[in-house]
Amino acid sequence: MRVVVTGGAGFIGSRLVSALLAQGSLKDSNCIEHEITQICVADVGEPLQPLPDDRRIETRYGDFSDPGAAQQLLQRDTRVVFHLAAVVSGQAEQEFDLGMRINLDGTRRLLDACRELPQPPRFLFSSSVAVYGGDMPAVIRDDTPVCPQTSYGSQKAGCEMLINDYSRKGYVDGRALRLPTIVVRPGKPNAAASSFASAVLREPLQGTEVICPIKADTGLWVLSPRRVVGGFLHAASLPAEAWGVNRTVMLPGITVSVADMLDALREVASARVAERVKFEPDPFIEKIVYGWPATFAAERSTGMGFVADQNITEIIEAFIEDELGGQYVE
Amino acid sequence: MRVVVTGGAGFIGSRLVSALLAQGSLKDSNCIEHEITQICVADVGEPLQPLPDDRRIETRYGDFSDPGAAQQLLQRDTRVVFHLAAVVSGQAEQEFDLGMRINLDGTRRLLDACRELPQPPRFLFSSSVAVYGGDMPAVIRDDTPVCPQTSYGSQKAGCEMLINDYSRKGYVDGRALRLPTIVVRPGKPNAAASSFASAVLREPLQGTEVICPIKADTGLWVLSPRRVVGGFLHAASLPAEAWGVNRTVMLPGITVSVADMLDALREVASARVAERVKFEPDPFIEKIVYGWPATFAAERSTGMGFVADQNITEIIEAFIEDELGGQYVE
Repeated sequence: MRVVVTGGAGFIGSRLVSALLAQGSLKDSNCIEHEITQICVADVGEPLQPLPDDRRIETRYGDFSDPGAAQQLLQRDTRVVFHLAAVVSGQAEQEFDLGMRINLDGTRRLLDACRELPQPPRFLFSSSVAVYGGDMPAVIRDDTPVCPQTSYGSQKAGCEMLINDYSRKGYVDGRALRLPTIVVRPGKPNAAASSFASAVLREPLQGTEVICPIKADTGLWVLSPRRVVGGFLHAASLPAEAWGVNRTVMLPGITVSVADMLDALREVASARVAERVKFEPDPFIEKIVYGWPATFAAERSTGMGFVADQNITEIIEAFIEDELGGQYVE
Repeated sequence: MRVVVTGGAGFIGSRLVSALLAQGSLKDSNCIEHEITQICVADVGEPLQPLPDDRRIETRYGDFSDPGAAQQLLQRDTRVVFHLAAVVSGQAEQEFDLGMRINLDGTRRLLDACRELPQPPRFLFSSSVAVYGGDMPAVIRDDTPVCPQTSYGSQKAGCEMLINDYSRKGYVDGRALRLPTIVVRPGKPNAAASSFASAVLREPLQGTEVICPIKADTGLWVLSPRRVVGGFLHAASLPAEAWGVNRTVMLPGITVSVADMLDALREVASARVAERVKFEPDPFIEKIVYGWPATFAAERSTGMGFVADQNITEIIEAFIEDELGGQYVE
């Protein structure tokens, strides 16, 4: 069985590829285990860190949103497609046409290419909490309507709609996961409004001071890289009946504030590490972040067997183990 | 000021064109009245009934979903676009690619063409109750999430998403109306599952017997042609602030059963007219119709000044006046 991972060179994608290689097989919709003979890693460019040296990996670097290009990623024995490739939120807002082309048209072309396969593949899609917005209740529930306030969120919501209909028609067996804010992302702070959420944990553990631009008591809905990769593997193996008429689910996460994060840094590392976080409110970032939903009752996904992290301590410990080789700077 | 009406040769479109001609002007978002100097009636083919002989009408017949074709409908002084053209529900389900091309791509191309106008036009869109489906509450509220179970409904929901985002970006000033089942449609019964809803009123009033394929107590959410045209005119003239972050609204309607319709036929016409309706349950139609939401709390649109019919009697009387020249067959 061949598996395709778009965005496979990215942060989540490359970890998913490693997990697929380690697992070696995936269950189909009838709970029958199939060996993964090939993983096609498709992305716009090469990964920052080299992919594992494994004969099952085939790499395809380029722009796959062009007409006809999506077909080239698929082969007759492709049974599962993880579609993670996307233009990120800030860029989709600034470059509207690019976001539409990659995030909406690109997904549609990949879905249409799937229709030409001899067997409708499972189609896993990375959606986002960015589909929510406008007048939101205090707690987002599974029946809270989407109301995106960014082009990125609109494109993700549009793709969810397509995946539902392509699944209903039997063209694919789609499963879309709305991801919480993923922490801890490795790398350096960047211009994304959510950058601080990972930076306030990542930087102090590496001995670097970091500015937190929001109030310490602001809640965030977060999930770890380990759990999101686990979520995609779980979503791929669930029987189609578990999804019913709605192929989209909000992944469970945990609500944590920056204050909670600092408490956990003190517990896992030390007060000295936690003190490397300085607060300097940034009205621009505050305006964006205070508009994000922070509390969800993700009952549907929990009922389907998706699992959140226990607490922020567990997330920090996993980050130290996975990304810092077990060592942090005292 | 130029106005464009796509689907302008159709049942609702041609009535909207007549209403625009009669009204002669439209308010802009600042409540300033502008004279309508030209109405571009765009449709795939000529209307069944000739359009009014009026120098302000310009007709364009053809397929406007092709790339580049949408621009040709717009001119620098186009301030309002009523986009009613669509492949109907049954056809969009049977011919998936056609439905996607006309209903989704066609709308997007028209929206993109609007971006090239010197002033973002008001963009009125005809959406549908078909966006609802799946596990629905007994009463559909303004915050009930969409979950379309047809390709037509998915395409309409996708267009709503686009219109919201294009409006948020300032490319258009969009307003999408979700229409109830429109009764009484003129013409002959057709293969549409909703065909009976108009037929059980239209046919007996013209002396013809008709088969009702569903149980007499089944509720339907209906609106008259007069009210839907009035709704579009009202939607076009509301200030942008009235819409806020959500450019879609469910139009108010009334819940009526076929039994209510027969009672009204007896009241407006006679028992003899009502007796021309015979009941022969059709399991295929029943399965579809019993899945339709029949009761809505359309509080948002009511608060915005949209108006439903008073009752089914009013709808029947308007039909006799507008379509039968004031005469029905005793």
